[in-house]
Amino acid sequence: MKILVINPNTTAEMTRDIGAQARRYARADTQIEAISPSWGPPSIESHAEQELGAVAMLRIVADRAPEFDGIVIACYGDPGLYAAREISPVPVMGIAESSMMMTLSVAHRFSIVAALARSRPIMEDVVRRYGLEARCASVRTTSLAVLEIGRDPERAERQIIVEAREAVERDGAEAISLGCAGMGTLDKRVQEAVGVPVVDGVVAAVKLLEGITDYGLGTSRVAAFTSPEVQELTRLAELPLVPPNGGGVPNVAT
Amino acid sequence: MKILVINPNTTAEMTRDIGAQARRYARADTQIEAISPSWGPPSIESHAEQELGAVAMLRIVADRAPEFDGIVIACYGDPGLYAAREISPVPVMGIAESSMMMTLSVAHRFSIVAALARSRPIMEDVVRRYGLEARCASVRTTSLAVLEIGRDPERAERQIIVEAREAVERDGAEAISLGCAGMGTLDKRVQEAVGVPVVDGVVAAVKLLEGITDYGLGTSRVAAFTSPEVQELTRLAELPLVPPNGGGVPNVAT
Amino acid sequence: MKILVINPNTTAEMTRDIGAQARRYARADTQIEAISPSWGPPSIESHAEQELGAVAMLRIVADRAPEFDGIVIACYGDPGLYAAREISPVPVMGIAESSMMMTLSVAHRFSIVAALARSRPIMEDVVRRYGLEARCASVRTTSLAVLEIGRDPERAERQIIVEAREAVERDGAEAISLGCAGMGTLDKRVQEAVGVPVVDGVVAAVKLLEGITDYGLGTSRVAAFTSPEVQELTRLAELPLVPPNGGGVPNVAT
Amino acid sequence: MKILVINPNTTAEMTRDIGAQARRYARADTQIEAISPSWGPPSIESHAEQELGAVAMLRIVADRAPEFDGIVIACYGDPGLYAAREISPVPVMGIAESSMMMTLSVAHRFSIVAALARSRPIMEDVVRRYGLEARCASVRTTSLAVLEIGRDPERAERQIIVEAREAVERDGAEAISLGCAGMGTLDKRVQEAVGVPVVDGVVAAVKLLEGITDYGLGTSRVAAFTSPEVQELTRLAELPLVPPNGGGVPNVAT
Amino acid sequence: MKILVINPNTTAEMTRDIGAQARRYARADTQIEAISPSWGPPSIESHAEQELGAVAMLRIVADRAPEFDGIVIACYGDPGLYAAREISPVPVMGIAESSMMMTLSVAHRFSIVAALARSRPIMEDVVRRYGLEARCASVRTTSLAVLEIGRDPERAERQIIVEAREAVERDGAEAISLGCAGMGTLDKRVQEAVGVPVVDGVVAAVKLLEGITDYGLGTSRVAAFTSPEVQELTRLAELPLVPPNGGGVPNVAT
Amino acid sequence: MKILVINPNTTAEMTRDIGAQARRYARADTQIEAISPSWGPPSIESHAEQELGAVAMLRIVADRAPEFDGIVIACYGDPGLYAAREISPVPVMGIAESSMMMTLSVAHRFSIVAALARSRPIMEDVVRRYGLEARCASVRTTSLAVLEIGRDPERAERQIIVEAREAVERDGAEAISLGCAGMGTLDKRVQEAVGVPVVDGVVAAVKLLEGITDYGLGTSRVAAFTSPEVQELTRLAELPLVPPNGGGVPNVAT
Repeated sequence: MKILVINPNTTAEMTRDIGAQARRYARADTQIEAISPSWGPPSIESHAEQELGAVAMLRIVADRAPEFDGIVIACYGDPGLYAAREISPVPVMGIAESSMMMTLSVAHRFSIVAALARSRPIMEDVVRRYGLEARCASVRTTSLAVLEIGRDPERAERQIIVEAREAVERDGAEAISLGCAGMGTLDKRVQEAVGVPVVDGVVAAVKLLEGITDYGLGTSRVAAFTSPEVQELTRLAELPLVPPNGGGVPNVAT
Repeated sequence: MKILVINPNTTAEMTRDIGAQARRYARADTQIEAISPSWGPPSIESHAEQELGAVAMLRIVADRAPEFDGIVIACYGDPGLYAAREISPVPVMGIAESSMMMTLSVAHRFSIVAALARSRPIMEDVVRRYGLEARCASVRTTSLAVLEIGRDPERAERQIIVEAREAVERDGAEAISLGCAGMGTLDKRVQEAVGVPVVDGVVAAVKLLEGITDYGLGTSRVAAFTSPEVQELTRLAELPLVPPNGGGVPNVAT
Repeated sequence: MKILVINPNTTAEMTRDIGAQARRYARADTQIEAISPSWGPPSIESHAEQELGAVAMLRIVADRAPEFDGIVIACYGDPGLYAAREISPVPVMGIAESSMMMTLSVAHRFSIVAALARSRPIMEDVVRRYGLEARCASVRTTSLAVLEIGRDPERAERQIIVEAREAVERDGAEAISLGCAGMGTLDKRVQEAVGVPVVDGVVAAVKLLEGITDYGLGTSRVAAFTSPEVQELTRLAELPLVPPNGGGVPNVAT
Repeated sequence: MKILVINPNTTAEMTRDIGAQARRYARADTQIEAISPSWGPPSIESHAEQELGAVAMLRIVADRAPEFDGIVIACYGDPGLYAAREISPVPVMGIAESSMMMTLSVAHRFSIVAALARSRPIMEDVVRRYGLEARCASVRTTSLAVLEIGRDPERAERQIIVEAREAVERDGAEAISLGCAGMGTLDKRVQEAVGVPVVDGVVAAVKLLEGITDYGLGTSRVAAFTSPEVQELTRLAELPLVPPNGGGVPNVAT
Repeated sequence: MKILVINPNTTAEMTRDIGAQARRYARADTQIEAISPSWGPPSIESHAEQELGAVAMLRIVADRAPEFDGIVIACYGDPGLYAAREISPVPVMGIAESSMMMTLSVAHRFSIVAALARSRPIMEDVVRRYGLEARCASVRTTSLAVLEIGRDPERAERQIIVEAREAVERDGAEAISLGCAGMGTLDKRVQEAVGVPVVDGVVAAVKLLEGITDYGLGTSRVAAFTSPEVQELTRLAELPLVPPNGGGVPNVAT
Repeated sequence: MKILVINPNTTAEMTRDIGAQARRYARADTQIEAISPSWGPPSIESHAEQELGAVAMLRIVADRAPEFDGIVIACYGDPGLYAAREISPVPVMGIAESSMMMTLSVAHRFSIVAALARSRPIMEDVVRRYGLEARCASVRTTSLAVLEIGRDPERAERQIIVEAREAVERDGAEAISLGCAGMGTLDKRVQEAVGVPVVDGVVAAVKLLEGITDYGLGTSRVAAFTSPEVQELTRLAELPLVPPNGGGVPNVAT
């Protein structure tokens, strides 16, 4: 099975870590390719960055999806997820949705611990989009920007543990969904410290894709994820979604 | 990986079919044991039968769980699921919850097609318990009782297809969750006829368990699924949950 | 009018207190029989104990319901309520549902004060099952297990008053629903201390049953509470729900 | 026990019928006085009539409440209910709220059958105000205005039965809440025809009041139903809410 | 364009301030007449006062509406709004609804800061009536009664600022809806202090009316706001809603 | 006042019509510039087209916003609205949100009539994002693609009228929100035919912007719409969002 993990931001270190995390729990026969666009936001923390990252990601989906059995969008918030499902011939997972779903198999209510405070309304809207308000105990945030997590993982770990503990003790959370792809490698350390299941969405998405693929399921083509007209796909492929300066290739961390 | 699939009713043919269905999509290294209690309801279609089936199932969980990596409760409605999570040392999946979760990776809204009309309020309550009202397009039912599905699968298939089509065309469903463990083997035939993803909960639960186990997640022990006190487990083991006439052993379909 | 109050746990002192509390506010022409099963959990604080208690209770309903005008399930959480409504020829009340309904005639929002912290998610799910999220201000808990309430009522009273006050002052509660059958006898003391209506579900259920019976209403037999097939009732009667050791009779506190 | 049943419209025949219906199911020791204001709308079918009827009703509450143990507002829609609770020293029931609550003891979901189509959004808002959306299957209406029901009860009965049946067969209702005080006397005939519990709110309110009074509960005085300042009560008493022409007394049907 | 702003309470100073506030942001070609009834409550803080104020307001609507292009009910809580829409030939705005709507164009979630604590459940119900629970971060209150705000605006300002800041910092509010017509003139001072948009409902209602009138929209006459029968309007006009002592004229602040 | 109306698709005829419609109801002192990007989708009917159109629109916002007092995104579905609010120094309105808000001043519940069936789940999600599920009666669609509406307005009008009537008669709608910017010019014809208020979102957005601007409100900068970091704006400006072939300028219809 071949899975393409797309980090919609351009930070290669993060793409590399995400790829490693995906491979850590993938089955032996699952091949992971982690990729990020060569242009777009270096991190995604605002609605505007989500929009840019979504289009950069879609360009990759349009190009590469046919080579894979499934695709993971490795940015909590799932930018462009529904659009990717429309244009991709293979299933597409968002790490937010996958992560929430997986916590719900081991806990009655989960909390999200995300990066900066500005992520909170975005994450609350994501929970609402998936209709999971009744299962989400809270959204909590740290004082670290997405890229600071990778730069200072000890500090990130400390802050995530503090917030995760508060989520459990005050908000009624029974599991933690790590609200940023950059937090994934801290999953087991936080889990050990806090004593509840901690789920990285990249892993969750890979595992769900493996299961869906084994079962032979594909994205439904009625209603929400109806395939767009042919000319639209053409248009997407024609868009200047190669790097603005005409150079470079998408970052691939294999 | 070893998974115990418990059919909470006593109908051996159904247990055998459920086991076969579980094995059909399980990984090569996943061992499935399908079992049903030697007493209790031959089918589960009412709240009362759910209560009896739940206790019969819990007795098996108390006995057998330590031998496995995960447990599947193979009755849509997920009778006793939260109790099983409390007393089991390994993760427990309900086929209703698993099935809904899996549809949500390939569709925005799903419908459930269940057996008799009396199942409808029960299934609507299950959807509500999981907080998925916004993602569930409808619950539809056939005129067949659970055991009639196994006895006349062609008739069941025809009726399920009719209801699934209505769900798609009138209710806005994009995928179908088969609302009875006995419908599982019809999954691909219904899917082919209706043209949307059709999910059997037994398969969904097995695939989710495989993923959860790979990732090393266990049931959260805070709040909802806190383990009961030791004496309670003892009490469960002492209960007269062996067959009322003192004879027989649980049905095991291996 | 004859009402059967079933304490689904086996603690005779609690059954006796529940019976006394039921009689305290019953009409002169209402006869109360309080009963508990001879086997099953001595207290109900987990999902697993709910399942066991529910079946023990159902066995009594199957045997005794025809002798009465109505039945009360005297365990907050209402284990087995919908199943009991299916198999009982007479109306069945759960003390959680009855208690919440009665508070809503004298208050816009209520809070529940339950026993141990582990009850909180269970009670929140019960509120959700009844669709009363918008009317429930909070669920609060004490540090006392169910049986400790009966053993040390002064301590229980102090803790319940503390939590009830917090519910009023912080959560916006206007009335308190006592979240455990064992708290019933403290109702007026808590009410006096906190200054808002305090409702014991046993009393609420008895008063609602008196009203329903006067009006000649019976459980609806369409949809949710459709009577099960005859063979199911037979099966229930045959189940080994007499004490495991074959001896003893159900505890009756008259 | 003394209960004041206030019909907020001025139609004496309706007041008389409401009083008779209240007495039909009241306990032997419950005295019912049915009253209506001498001015105000002859029937209440619009928001504007609700506002007028509410003030006319409040004037009676301000005058007469201290003579009684409880008050019933006998107009579905419960105009002025929360205001009446504020100013009344004794509990006040609205027939919509009471009726819904009582159906929920014998059914999982109810439908309302109201008078004219224009009542539908009003009733849907009432259901929403009480937070019971999840328990209400539908609101259906007839082609009869409130006063036509009393003038042609056979026709009303026929139409109500048609709508009640549709509610059960199409909407999933398990009980019917009669959505107009004028429909009360048809309760048992509709119930017999449709085969599900049918609840008149006047009876429901009387029975709930009897129960609440036995239990010694009073309206909560914190938050929603805080008593108004003394001068406000004075002001209400001073208002020209005696008949506009200065003559007449409230209609009392004893 | 001519707009009638009705303050449903009798306090002339407040009516004058409301009129001034309405004019402050009205277009040059918009004429504002601010009026209050000559009888009724001097302030509206309870459900009972809402009922009285609603009828006093409706009497003015019945008399004066045809002279105007639109009407504003200048009492947060929008007493009688739906009734006024029924009987008025021109659009009617409630300041609560208008205020919330306007905040939602500049913020994702708003909080309401209202007068006394007793207003909180009333405002929460208003939010719920408009279906905006998901957009309302919180309802907060001060220790000042409505009329105290006008008497001591500095103290009011200080308290409102404190609560508005808490709403932003703790509850996630992004804008403040001033929950009392008497707070309107403090809008810009609070906005400056707290740093988020602060909306006075009187201004919001005037601006929405200007827009609606430009676009040529009128109140929908199907379902909720169906015009009442002619005789009902007659009845309203006949009601003794002139001052109880027969004297005086409505307060008009022009 | 200067308002920039951005049609996020590239169809110049549609941009011209939208501009004309905006001017038709704008105040005399309001200047409207209607613009569309020179690249991107010619119409927006899928999630994928929304993503592309959003970025094309954001590029214009980044360039042009400082010249205006407010911005309108003229595509129902409001693609990129929250991102535009983040990066724009002036208020930004989406026509879906504005249209729904405006209907709610003249109706209790609205329906949306959108273009193709595939728009339905998208619009339902938009309603949900704004938390207006309780106020939305239904989403209905025609058989016409967005661009067909402009090409055959008579056919579009006929179909919209049919669906709008069904919405009123079957779904309980009291007003219609036209679910496509291309339908705007049909507003009054549909309104006349169906007899309920019909709202074009472009007009609604312009009128709301005029009101907000008069009142001096700006987008809240806490939480959801926090401005992105400076470098992000720079990055947006650098993106290859000029036409892919390097030529052309944005379509401006003045």
